[in-house]
Amino acid sequence: MKFGADYYPEQWTPNDWKEDLRIMKDMGLSVVRLAEFSWALVEPKEGLFDFSFWDKILDLVGKFEMQAILGTPTATFPPWLAQKHPEVMQIRDGITRIIGTRRQACFSSPKFKKAAERLVTEMAKALGRHPALISWQIDNEIGHEGSDIDHSPTSLIAFRSWLKKKYKTLKVLNETWGSVFWGIVFDDWNQIPIPGPHVSANFNPSMIQDFYRFQSDTVVDFVRMQAQILRKLSPGRTLTTNLYPSPFLPVIDMAELFRNLDYVSWDNYPTWGEQQEPFPHPFVSVMHQYNRGLKNRSFTVMEQISGFQGHEVLGYLPAPGQTQLWMKQAIAQGADQILFFRYRTARYGQEQLCYGILDHDKVLTERYFELQKGIAEILPYAQDFASEPFPAEVAVLHDIDNARNFKHQPVSSGLKFSPVPFAQVGYDLEMATWFAGLDILNVNTHFLPAGETDFFKYKVLVLPLYSMIEEAVVKKLEEYVSAGGTLVLGYRSGAKDKNGWMLDSPIPGPFRKMAGISVRKFEAVGEEPVKFRFRVLPGTCSKICEILEPETAEVWATYTDNKKFYKGKPVITHNRFGKGSVVYVGASLHPISFMLLYRRILRNAGVGFSFYGPNVEKIFRSGKEKNYEIYLNHSRKSVFAGWKRLKPFEVRIIPRRKS
Amino acid sequence: MKFGADYYPEQWTPNDWKEDLRIMKDMGLSVVRLAEFSWALVEPKEGLFDFSFWDKILDLVGKFEMQAILGTPTATFPPWLAQKHPEVMQIRDGITRIIGTRRQACFSSPKFKKAAERLVTEMAKALGRHPALISWQIDNEIGHEGSDIDHSPTSLIAFRSWLKKKYKTLKVLNETWGSVFWGIVFDDWNQIPIPGPHVSANFNPSMIQDFYRFQSDTVVDFVRMQAQILRKLSPGRTLTTNLYPSPFLPVIDMAELFRNLDYVSWDNYPTWGEQQEPFPHPFVSVMHQYNRGLKNRSFTVMEQISGFQGHEVLGYLPAPGQTQLWMKQAIAQGADQILFFRYRTARYGQEQLCYGILDHDKVLTERYFELQKGIAEILPYAQDFASEPFPAEVAVLHDIDNARNFKHQPVSSGLKFSPVPFAQVGYDLEMATWFAGLDILNVNTHFLPAGETDFFKYKVLVLPLYSMIEEAVVKKLEEYVSAGGTLVLGYRSGAKDKNGWMLDSPIPGPFRKMAGISVRKFEAVGEEPVKFRFRVLPGTCSKICEILEPETAEVWATYTDNKKFYKGKPVITHNRFGKGSVVYVGASLHPISFMLLYRRILRNAGVGFSFYGPNVEKIFRSGKEKNYEIYLNHSRKSVFAGWKRLKPFEVRIIPRRKS
Amino acid sequence: MKFGADYYPEQWTPNDWKEDLRIMKDMGLSVVRLAEFSWALVEPKEGLFDFSFWDKILDLVGKFEMQAILGTPTATFPPWLAQKHPEVMQIRDGITRIIGTRRQACFSSPKFKKAAERLVTEMAKALGRHPALISWQIDNEIGHEGSDIDHSPTSLIAFRSWLKKKYKTLKVLNETWGSVFWGIVFDDWNQIPIPGPHVSANFNPSMIQDFYRFQSDTVVDFVRMQAQILRKLSPGRTLTTNLYPSPFLPVIDMAELFRNLDYVSWDNYPTWGEQQEPFPHPFVSVMHQYNRGLKNRSFTVMEQISGFQGHEVLGYLPAPGQTQLWMKQAIAQGADQILFFRYRTARYGQEQLCYGILDHDKVLTERYFELQKGIAEILPYAQDFASEPFPAEVAVLHDIDNARNFKHQPVSSGLKFSPVPFAQVGYDLEMATWFAGLDILNVNTHFLPAGETDFFKYKVLVLPLYSMIEEAVVKKLEEYVSAGGTLVLGYRSGAKDKNGWMLDSPIPGPFRKMAGISVRKFEAVGEEPVKFRFRVLPGTCSKICEILEPETAEVWATYTDNKKFYKGKPVITHNRFGKGSVVYVGASLHPISFMLLYRRILRNAGVGFSFYGPNVEKIFRSGKEKNYEIYLNHSRKSVFAGWKRLKPFEVRIIPRRKS
Repeated sequence: MKFGADYYPEQWTPNDWKEDLRIMKDMGLSVVRLAEFSWALVEPKEGLFDFSFWDKILDLVGKFEMQAILGTPTATFPPWLAQKHPEVMQIRDGITRIIGTRRQACFSSPKFKKAAERLVTEMAKALGRHPALISWQIDNEIGHEGSDIDHSPTSLIAFRSWLKKKYKTLKVLNETWGSVFWGIVFDDWNQIPIPGPHVSANFNPSMIQDFYRFQSDTVVDFVRMQAQILRKLSPGRTLTTNLYPSPFLPVIDMAELFRNLDYVSWDNYPTWGEQQEPFPHPFVSVMHQYNRGLKNRSFTVMEQISGFQGHEVLGYLPAPGQTQLWMKQAIAQGADQILFFRYRTARYGQEQLCYGILDHDKVLTERYFELQKGIAEILPYAQDFASEPFPAEVAVLHDIDNARNFKHQPVSSGLKFSPVPFAQVGYDLEMATWFAGLDILNVNTHFLPAGETDFFKYKVLVLPLYSMIEEAVVKKLEEYVSAGGTLVLGYRSGAKDKNGWMLDSPIPGPFRKMAGISVRKFEAVGEEPVKFRFRVLPGTCSKICEILEPETAEVWATYTDNKKFYKGKPVITHNRFGKGSVVYVGASLHPISFMLLYRRILRNAGVGFSFYGPNVEKIFRSGKEKNYEIYLNHSRKSVFAGWKRLKPFEVRIIPRRKS
Repeated sequence: MKFGADYYPEQWTPNDWKEDLRIMKDMGLSVVRLAEFSWALVEPKEGLFDFSFWDKILDLVGKFEMQAILGTPTATFPPWLAQKHPEVMQIRDGITRIIGTRRQACFSSPKFKKAAERLVTEMAKALGRHPALISWQIDNEIGHEGSDIDHSPTSLIAFRSWLKKKYKTLKVLNETWGSVFWGIVFDDWNQIPIPGPHVSANFNPSMIQDFYRFQSDTVVDFVRMQAQILRKLSPGRTLTTNLYPSPFLPVIDMAELFRNLDYVSWDNYPTWGEQQEPFPHPFVSVMHQYNRGLKNRSFTVMEQISGFQGHEVLGYLPAPGQTQLWMKQAIAQGADQILFFRYRTARYGQEQLCYGILDHDKVLTERYFELQKGIAEILPYAQDFASEPFPAEVAVLHDIDNARNFKHQPVSSGLKFSPVPFAQVGYDLEMATWFAGLDILNVNTHFLPAGETDFFKYKVLVLPLYSMIEEAVVKKLEEYVSAGGTLVLGYRSGAKDKNGWMLDSPIPGPFRKMAGISVRKFEAVGEEPVKFRFRVLPGTCSKICEILEPETAEVWATYTDNKKFYKGKPVITHNRFGKGSVVYVGASLHPISFMLLYRRILRNAGVGFSFYGPNVEKIFRSGKEKNYEIYLNHSRKSVFAGWKRLKPFEVRIIPRRKS
Repeated sequence: MKFGADYYPEQWTPNDWKEDLRIMKDMGLSVVRLAEFSWALVEPKEGLFDFSFWDKILDLVGKFEMQAILGTPTATFPPWLAQKHPEVMQIRDGITRIIGTRRQACFSSPKFKKAAERLVTEMAKALGRHPALISWQIDNEIGHEGSDIDHSPTSLIAFRSWLKKKYKTLKVLNETWGSVFWGIVFDDWNQIPIPGPHVSANFNPSMIQDFYRFQSDTVVDFVRMQAQILRKLSPGRTLTTNLYPSPFLPVIDMAELFRNLDYVSWDNYPTWGEQQEPFPHPFVSVMHQYNRGLKNRSFTVMEQISGFQGHEVLGYLPAPGQTQLWMKQAIAQGADQILFFRYRTARYGQEQLCYGILDHDKVLTERYFELQKGIAEILPYAQDFASEPFPAEVAVLHDIDNARNFKHQPVSSGLKFSPVPFAQVGYDLEMATWFAGLDILNVNTHFLPAGETDFFKYKVLVLPLYSMIEEAVVKKLEEYVSAGGTLVLGYRSGAKDKNGWMLDSPIPGPFRKMAGISVRKFEAVGEEPVKFRFRVLPGTCSKICEILEPETAEVWATYTDNKKFYKGKPVITHNRFGKGSVVYVGASLHPISFMLLYRRILRNAGVGFSFYGPNVEKIFRSGKEKNYEIYLNHSRKSVFAGWKRLKPFEVRIIPRRKS
């Protein structure tokens, strides 16, 4: 278990450096992340490299017996590169990303890739064996701020090559996409457009799905290229890249991205910008579990909120005690290394309102002392459990191809959500909601990519929105249930194949026998609540309301809404299949209904749970020496968790002997 | 009376075709619409034509003793055309419509027109005399999805030519537009811009009006060009084009468009996309009457909702019984041919969520049986009345130049309504509201282009928002009223001339004597309700509140709103003129107030009406053999219409002997 | 005191002119503003000038013993200029401003500047000594409709030159901007971009601040260039330019703009377009005071609302009596010349819905008679006081650099407000709110540029949002307070320097000692109301909530909001400093709370105030002969101001002997 800070010595004076490291060390920090925006500093003119600045800083870090993570600074590039090769710029929805902000790079650009390759090579040569260096962060928040989609001509050319490689002939491409539809049959690879801005009707969904896959492959390749250089020239150092918040279910296949890297890291901001409230705590937990799940082991928070952040606009101010709580929650949910963003608040630049541990001056803040104390409190326990496996009998499964599919085809307006114009994360939010119902019941829960999970390790698997199916997964799930597992399926299950074609069978397609139902009719009700009854308990659901037709299943819940003609029809069913069972949930439930449903499922499956109100989270961890019950009070009031009284924002860790 | 389906054999396998036609035939269908998106299929490379696919399909259609309507497939074009001539692409608000969606064609492009001409010629030659072919649909939903406005350079060049033809000299153009205003005086035709995207202040309203007229002429010409080819090469076949939903009062002069065609057809979707409720039934009826009125005779529904539709997002699910109701409503309001969209749901492409009669598989659905039964029920009656004239003593009159004018100059925010960014249909909605008040009183009502109507056939004419006047129409109306007719005028009447100049007289301009009032002051209140009293009954109005100054008129209603300084001033007046009378309505009334006002007007004019609540529609039709009273229950509950109890979504047809 | 009208003889016939001037004269008008959109009229072809039209009009004006203000017609240019030099066009957010609207000129364009220079020279030569000419209005509403920001390539080139002139070397620029941040270090002037449209993260705030300053300088230079020509060729005529509504705190430094001109003028529309209510009266007053304050003396309203206005859409209709009230309010707040917009309503062009004194016809309207009477009523008094100084013991201070800063970095969403896409005027609105609290207490209040004000003339200075400090101003304020003045500071005081760097000291930076507090923590609460208590009185605040840490200050108000952890912490403090005192207000108060706070401050400072409810405004003026108490009833109901009963919209002027 390590703690550290994100440090920008280049933004301060040489007089500051030693003092800064001393202040960090006193706080309990031993790691600094450096250099991730310093391309212009180390290559001020094309081909003219000078890493002496960072060499000096690394020496100093070593002198303080601290360690460094170096960022490869490819997240912005120097103006000279853009001036020489305008094609290195991304274009998004008609706007060319010009010099002056960040994340402008077109990942398909040969010129950009070559420049990045040379830079990383030189940097690895110059600094890669420095004794203070322990790890590399490749790029920074790759894909963030909409940079996972690139509509530039350079991207288009690469997209065509990618398609050529995938489909070999246009005949296969036309057949796979169904180009006969609306008569958009390609007879030259150069006719293929980029599915970008359009006035009205959108592009073929199969094409958009491929475009997203292409964008993902391009980014993954770019990271892999850097990883290969670093492996060679900086032996013994671990590799990662830091995912942006929320890193959730984007266009990029993050599990694939990390295949060539050693550990996952991400940037955790429970509140940011003009948010008026922090995310509900289960949403922070599911983000941790998403990152934990990518390699199914402990991870790093590369940027952990330490202050109060935003670019032009700010919002919620974390209350005293809340910042240390979020730090401890990260550890409880699987982090074994935390770096705070950022050591001191920048006086200039786009982040001059991104408050770090210290303010613009260098006076020690309340936050400094709060985190110092928090580190001291958790360290003894964290050293025992933080790097150990996170125990769980339940997993919620996500799938990148379905994430992509629902981004361009949400089916219900309730599955659309665009917090910023360039992101559509309704699916992500829905997945988080399915996870939250378990988190609130204090059930340790994994959140894993469906295609890479060993199902047999879990008593209960929850697989919502698994619309675009992979046959191998379906088959494995069938074996899992047959052998006694409990599978929870959600609406839209089994609707499509990997080419984006609707199956010529009703929902839930290949799950029909397992689930013991079929779906001939559904309504897309948006955010409108529709009433139903689960046993004797009334509840509401929304987004999509499927009318389930039980074949072998028993009915667990029915619609009761007078406004709907399907009042009396089933919405949740349960089916015995082999030694196991399948619960099918035909709508998106209100969180309270989710909780009630999960209680029944967990009880049937023999998984323990508890409930201490909406503000308490309880997590179980197993250390090398002991087991731990960790109670987190996410509220500004004292609350009871059973007999325990937790103070505001208190995190209580109760060690138990291992049995 | 015929029934059919929109069929896409190219999206299925040869093995399906016979089975498909058999299934249709069993359902009661005898017509298929084919080929309207198949340009790439029949001309896979430039100049290489192959119509054998459709020849085979037509043979099969003939074998089943069914008939075919062929679409000329100009609504999308093959990628090779765009690749060779990028100028064939439309541009809308800065976005070039590229290959991959539909409706991209620049109708001003000589290259596009030439390619389309050649295609239609070849298609007519190859298939035009096939015995199974009965009719042609030219293009598909022409002008839909914002394609009625084209900001491309090619469009600009054509606009300048159009202006040159209209105005001959720039002097006349400058004078007509009032170019001296803001000093935008043109001294070269090439200086004239396209009135497209602008940062702030808009273009000259006279110019925009001309631009809309130019766009309309361009589309009308394109359809006429195709019609001329088909007349020549496919003798004996009727011609139409299908208007998109809602086809209402757009930029294109649809009456002009159909002048060269044989019958009107349109696509009827009472619910679509993420709509959470279907349109109120009077809005569906006014759309039928709009289409009926374009040629003032029976029409075809080329795409009639049969399932549950949307592109990326869905909404309201039609209830059991509702789909057959909508089909029967179409017939009652004037359709004598209905094709359902679509036979089977596409598995791929942008319409994979556009559910048709059958789902993605080929199992016969509830909808199939519902429509089969519905057809059988109505056919005996429909065969008698469907193609006969639709009797009406009342007409609501619309006018394309006023539609255009209110699109770019709505005067009140209450007359703006943009369901999608590229459409502004506040005026259309307002016209529908004026119609709805009559529909709800079960008065058979025509909805007709003001300039083409024989006024003397009606007891009551309703002419709302007739702001931009045509002198000939005013004169004819004067004669009509003098001779005993009843004319209902709305706010903003008689404000402008055809050049877009405000008249130098107060509203209602040339109607002043007829209406017996003048208007010196008005307020634009947006959606805010303003109170008034009509006789003893309180009501509300909105959008625009004119303060009427009676000269010879009597006051029927006055404002009563304490918030307004014009409390006590007249809002509705009635004036005797010759043997007739003119009612002037100075505001947009709440639907209930409209109903109350119409009751008085109808009673005075000796037109019968009834009211069975908001969900019942009653229509009178006159057949060759008998007369019919048709009762439609548009609700999911049983209701009473007088002594008759109508079941949910029931359509009851009561034949009466002709007197 | 003069009255006049904006007159467009070019839009009417020669037969109208004499009659028009007669009608104006009869109404009490003696001035006409002419020609400001007539470039195309006077230079129909490049280099071909003909001013005979205006010469004739000026003769006529002289004959009627009236006077004329001529506009230099550079606010639109003729199509031939755009055709010849497309680079004269502005580009804003990706949209090129083309011919057909107005305000298209790129002020950085040498071609445009040269054409404008030649035009103004010729116009001044031709008309500059006409006896009827008394004054020039340079351009029209310069910077309006978003034209103060230009993203064109021509603008970019000029921006680089401006930077070169300011910074001399890129080293200095890079250091000043903090280019090391995100590694955007420039090594060639041509690498510098325009801070225009961006997908996500914005440009460096120091750069944006400079870009705004550059845009301001460019416009100021353009006006200066015209002024120099006119001074030379039209001696003895006064110079102005008319600011657009609201002219408030824009990107352009208006105080600088007027330095070379003789008097300020602006366009006053208390209601415009689709506004459903007029601005609250204090907002109209603060706009008058803003304009008065730019030169700290009487000003002209160049366009005073006389009718009912909007382009495509209208809204609130001024009630009878309200138009004369607004005219009198303008005089009471400092105008000594008023021209009504416009004499007669245009029949064509973009302003055909901009109703003037007369309607489209030439019948004398109610408005005509109302204004005629209003002029006659106020003239005797206005002639005594209108051109005299406006007495005030209190001033609210604004600062253009802070206006710019909060436009691109509002800190709180509560300080963002975009009534149109191209304007962000949250700061302006907030400044108006701080002023309104004084206006409602009937305290004569100046509204002045902080950098140009003689502080010692005032008992109370209110300086809100003074975030970006100028050291000289801080020093002068220190002297002012030391000597006994009362200074009211607002939240975010003293946060930044002029380069846009955050100071390395906590808020309020250099004001810390004066204010006796420091701020370590604040929350940005947007529009959410947060409770506090000022003495015994509860109130709410919003936008930003600073937690004040008193050092020498006493606490005047504390947060009381249970939802907030800072409940009990100070929000308003008061500090004695030298002989004076400083009140620090750590949040944006609700108007009622502002009023209560100001009452205490004014009482302490010995400034008189009164309160007659939200609709009465009382202003004190001092004439050459007498003093005046002016009472304005801004409501449609009778109200009491003490013992005086004011009729609806009445303005009562009570002369008092000078003591």
